[in-house]
Amino acid sequence: MIVAMQDLATEAEVQNVVEHLMHLGFEVHRTTGVRQTILAAVGARREFDMRELEVLAGVQQVYRISAPYKLAGKSFRPEGTIVKFKNGVEVGGNAVVVMAGPCSVESREQMLAVAETVARSGAKVMRGGAFKPRSSPYSFQGMGVEGLKIMREAADQFGLLVISEVMEISQIDLMMPYIDIFQIGARNMQNFNLLREIGKVRKPALLKRGIAATLEELLLSAEYIMAGGNYDVILCERGIRTFESYTRNTMDISAIPVIKKLSHLPMAGDPSHGIGIRNKVPPMACAAVAAGADALLIEVHNNPDKALSDGAQSLYPEQFAKLMAQLKIIAPAVGRTIA
Amino acid sequence: MIVAMQDLATEAEVQNVVEHLMHLGFEVHRTTGVRQTILAAVGARREFDMRELEVLAGVQQVYRISAPYKLAGKSFRPEGTIVKFKNGVEVGGNAVVVMAGPCSVESREQMLAVAETVARSGAKVMRGGAFKPRSSPYSFQGMGVEGLKIMREAADQFGLLVISEVMEISQIDLMMPYIDIFQIGARNMQNFNLLREIGKVRKPALLKRGIAATLEELLLSAEYIMAGGNYDVILCERGIRTFESYTRNTMDISAIPVIKKLSHLPMAGDPSHGIGIRNKVPPMACAAVAAGADALLIEVHNNPDKALSDGAQSLYPEQFAKLMAQLKIIAPAVGRTIA
Amino acid sequence: MIVAMQDLATEAEVQNVVEHLMHLGFEVHRTTGVRQTILAAVGARREFDMRELEVLAGVQQVYRISAPYKLAGKSFRPEGTIVKFKNGVEVGGNAVVVMAGPCSVESREQMLAVAETVARSGAKVMRGGAFKPRSSPYSFQGMGVEGLKIMREAADQFGLLVISEVMEISQIDLMMPYIDIFQIGARNMQNFNLLREIGKVRKPALLKRGIAATLEELLLSAEYIMAGGNYDVILCERGIRTFESYTRNTMDISAIPVIKKLSHLPMAGDPSHGIGIRNKVPPMACAAVAAGADALLIEVHNNPDKALSDGAQSLYPEQFAKLMAQLKIIAPAVGRTIA
Amino acid sequence: MIVAMQDLATEAEVQNVVEHLMHLGFEVHRTTGVRQTILAAVGARREFDMRELEVLAGVQQVYRISAPYKLAGKSFRPEGTIVKFKNGVEVGGNAVVVMAGPCSVESREQMLAVAETVARSGAKVMRGGAFKPRSSPYSFQGMGVEGLKIMREAADQFGLLVISEVMEISQIDLMMPYIDIFQIGARNMQNFNLLREIGKVRKPALLKRGIAATLEELLLSAEYIMAGGNYDVILCERGIRTFESYTRNTMDISAIPVIKKLSHLPMAGDPSHGIGIRNKVPPMACAAVAAGADALLIEVHNNPDKALSDGAQSLYPEQFAKLMAQLKIIAPAVGRTIA
Repeated sequence: MIVAMQDLATEAEVQNVVEHLMHLGFEVHRTTGVRQTILAAVGARREFDMRELEVLAGVQQVYRISAPYKLAGKSFRPEGTIVKFKNGVEVGGNAVVVMAGPCSVESREQMLAVAETVARSGAKVMRGGAFKPRSSPYSFQGMGVEGLKIMREAADQFGLLVISEVMEISQIDLMMPYIDIFQIGARNMQNFNLLREIGKVRKPALLKRGIAATLEELLLSAEYIMAGGNYDVILCERGIRTFESYTRNTMDISAIPVIKKLSHLPMAGDPSHGIGIRNKVPPMACAAVAAGADALLIEVHNNPDKALSDGAQSLYPEQFAKLMAQLKIIAPAVGRTIA
Repeated sequence: MIVAMQDLATEAEVQNVVEHLMHLGFEVHRTTGVRQTILAAVGARREFDMRELEVLAGVQQVYRISAPYKLAGKSFRPEGTIVKFKNGVEVGGNAVVVMAGPCSVESREQMLAVAETVARSGAKVMRGGAFKPRSSPYSFQGMGVEGLKIMREAADQFGLLVISEVMEISQIDLMMPYIDIFQIGARNMQNFNLLREIGKVRKPALLKRGIAATLEELLLSAEYIMAGGNYDVILCERGIRTFESYTRNTMDISAIPVIKKLSHLPMAGDPSHGIGIRNKVPPMACAAVAAGADALLIEVHNNPDKALSDGAQSLYPEQFAKLMAQLKIIAPAVGRTIA
Repeated sequence: MIVAMQDLATEAEVQNVVEHLMHLGFEVHRTTGVRQTILAAVGARREFDMRELEVLAGVQQVYRISAPYKLAGKSFRPEGTIVKFKNGVEVGGNAVVVMAGPCSVESREQMLAVAETVARSGAKVMRGGAFKPRSSPYSFQGMGVEGLKIMREAADQFGLLVISEVMEISQIDLMMPYIDIFQIGARNMQNFNLLREIGKVRKPALLKRGIAATLEELLLSAEYIMAGGNYDVILCERGIRTFESYTRNTMDISAIPVIKKLSHLPMAGDPSHGIGIRNKVPPMACAAVAAGADALLIEVHNNPDKALSDGAQSLYPEQFAKLMAQLKIIAPAVGRTIA
Repeated sequence: MIVAMQDLATEAEVQNVVEHLMHLGFEVHRTTGVRQTILAAVGARREFDMRELEVLAGVQQVYRISAPYKLAGKSFRPEGTIVKFKNGVEVGGNAVVVMAGPCSVESREQMLAVAETVARSGAKVMRGGAFKPRSSPYSFQGMGVEGLKIMREAADQFGLLVISEVMEISQIDLMMPYIDIFQIGARNMQNFNLLREIGKVRKPALLKRGIAATLEELLLSAEYIMAGGNYDVILCERGIRTFESYTRNTMDISAIPVIKKLSHLPMAGDPSHGIGIRNKVPPMACAAVAAGADALLIEVHNNPDKALSDGAQSLYPEQFAKLMAQLKIIAPAVGRTIA
């Protein structure tokens, strides 16, 4: 940590800050400039409320030097993390993995049809929601465990893995037998109790960035999961909230190269939620792969016009097939393939 | 709902949209201008994914006319809601109610000391966290039920009500015997399962605005609680996330007069979290009351320098006493008193 | 325009609003629902301060239906605008045009070297600033007209067009003999006097989106230029300001497909300013082309370590060459070529 | 400046950074921790593109310690700046100064009527625009110099000072004879050429914060003016752009106490633009004074319903009188009076 003292700070104020730092267990190095004294504090706790120093007399500003996350940071595993599945699929390796399916599981017929569609076009993972978090109390709330069973059956029939969203601790055990990846939604990115429990299971998790979360906060949430011993975390950009209201969210494509620099964890993109309207999904999916994404999460529905939720952002089967063809051209430009 | 067709929309496209609207149960009124056709749809479901219409051919834009909330809207109770407590305290009435106390319950001694301090200066409700949501896995996580018992005892001794944050459904029953108001934190504003359960209890709830939540979303979350029959909801502004990084959040003071116009629910302000650093809390508390807040939530600690959490934003007892004196001058300027 | 009345609006309030609308020259269509009256007003002025209606008694909300821009809108030229140059280069056609060069013109040697570099790799336009807007009063302010002469000479030697930023009306005439495209920077996007003057010249303009400008505002600024008769406007995304502070700005890649839908004007991307740090420029450039950009603006310097400004975001010549090779693979995936 | 090296940085990388810093004229102090090396660089140039260091191998992050502004910083004049006018009015002293008037100068009758109104209620400065920056090319553009003459006459008749917006360098000389304060609008906050010229005149300037400007950028723009020798700068908060779209802008009341801490310059609030709709202006004006504002800028019109611009955010005379009465109650609560 660095404490920059004010130009006018007195020697007594400097000493007081030095004592506080030492009391907290830091080793303190002092640099006295013509105008300003700077204190470098090293060696103590990673977690620390810097404002405790900011409120001391004579302090101008406090800078945290070491990132507040450790396990999620690049230096923990400079070679990068590859999340591996039994059927040979790898997220974070050379191949970009496409996860596709409807927003909600609606019926067995629907899931079989979609599974066939997405598998044929090259997806390796099937997505679909069984427990739905809806912003209105009057909306469809999901099929629950019944939906998970249906999704598992449909996925198995076409050799797909299954990803589905977990919204509460009580759902973890219910989901375990049916899914391959726990998806943690944007609204739960800082549901720390849920993160802690997911840290205890031994299944990969895909953690979506909250709509108002900084990339540092995303990594700190990944740290929560990893601190429990579950290192198979996939991060995911799905759009942040900005002043621009034409699109639902602003999909922050730059988060992809930034996370790849800061962390060893694989980074996915979710253009369906990122842009929120069908005909803009393919350009954003292409952009995500061009920017270096390790995986994509895409909503596809065999009959989007009849979907019970998010139909407007779900691709038609033929749109998805065309998109996959485009991605196969783009991936090699950045040294990748499509799984 | 209003559907504005594109200038170049064909008659067939217009007819297709009309049929969709009628199929959804809307009554449709058509306005044909020289350049543009406009469809006004009335009478159907309140909740509706407008994008289903936006993706139809020939549609330019879709506008939802009726607010997506009903119980939380002004017209449901134009006279305003007053949340009443057994000891005569009222939130939403003429008097502005001040809720004060430490971030976390730390010990019996601490709580008795703070309770005496805040009661003497005029607070009517004691705040304090027993279950703490922390963004780092390495931080203090709260005293739990033991903390609630301590807080109840301290509050009772000085005639105060108790407000504390509920973070999970499983905590509701544990908290019921000890608290007077369930606080729902910013991160849980869209935890819809929690909101639904709080809707079933018969105790008032204070619902904080999420850091990326629009005021419409805040009201929709209140609707979730009210839909269960719990109409005693107090809303609370505590800062939103903007590009300005000097302050932790940007406390949106304008949310206070806006909510007072859109809704009948009482509106509180939380300057401690809104501004995040002790010496800026009093100006923001004064501003909130000057702007029409019905209540304030303020962190006060008898020894902020030793606080286990949020010490840097907690007021010293003498700062709090001075602030209360200022508020007593300001409140009459806007036709209010301090409870 | 649509005026939604409040549920509780009286007949007198409705009539008052109707009269206001008619007085303003609108034709009014009234839809009376069970709960709510909706007024559709058609036919009057495009420009209108909707708040004049919002403040009338009984009004709930006012929606503008027709876009406030006309010349910049898609329906004005559904086939799309192609900005054509004498040497055959076209922006907005099938080929994606790359504009490259240093942030500032620094010397004749520098410009000749960079021109050769970028031309060899396939750029068609040379960029370089002669008048520099700097946020500190203590920074390098540019070479002025002398710089323009140097850039023209260097560009001509390698068959390149020239783009440079105009910051003030007084610079227009000075620049006319030396440049092919007037660049209007993000800070001047709403400098309406400058826009009006650029509307009078007969040279193409590239208009950058302001860091806090909505896409509607960008199109309205283009309208300012077009209203003067200069229809050769190229729009450009270069990053918006969001809460994320890791990157200088958040480059809004989704602006590219959105603008292509709303407008007939060509849309460029400026990843150098969008991301602000060298090693993230190529991924964002690739993403922009994958998302459908018509042109790219990229900072390249023969010796970025010695650049007088923005060296940290300028590509090395070999990085630029590699990027161009990547773009040539990506462009065909979205039906384009690299010019 | 502080340079934090990566955990894995080699000694050669550290030495390379040290050499760069020394080459730039810095004195370098090195702190070697168990995991990380930190370099503190003192003594060199205030202005510096930190990214030049960020791109060096082995560097994790670079922190600027000294603020990039000097003249505008608190330590330059810890006692605070008071901007004094010939008639005894002072901005930045104990009294809060209210500046009021219409958005645009429309006619002599209008200005005389408004001047009488605002003077009677206690305003000390008259505001009014003669040159109008409008976001649509089809709107009223202002009366120009004729408007300035009218405003001067009206102000003099009622003992008021005059503030009006300058939009271009060419307007400075035209305005000099008629105004007492140059207002620099939010869109021109980073028009550095204009700022430089205003720095050369010897009349006070009121500098509005841009809608996407950080407080540091606001102070850096003030520095531009002060660097020319004009130290009479008043800063002004008028709303920033956030994701909340219910209000036009989000008026950042917290900017007031923050600026008062960072700078010695007086800080004003403009609730009319901050909130944008008439009935929310008084609560926000009260909030600004409660938070410590030194001045207010308020739009008042004798007949807002007929105003040529911004009528919807202009107060009626009786609203303004009532607001002034409220402010006279609030100001003493924060140790101030109303001028």
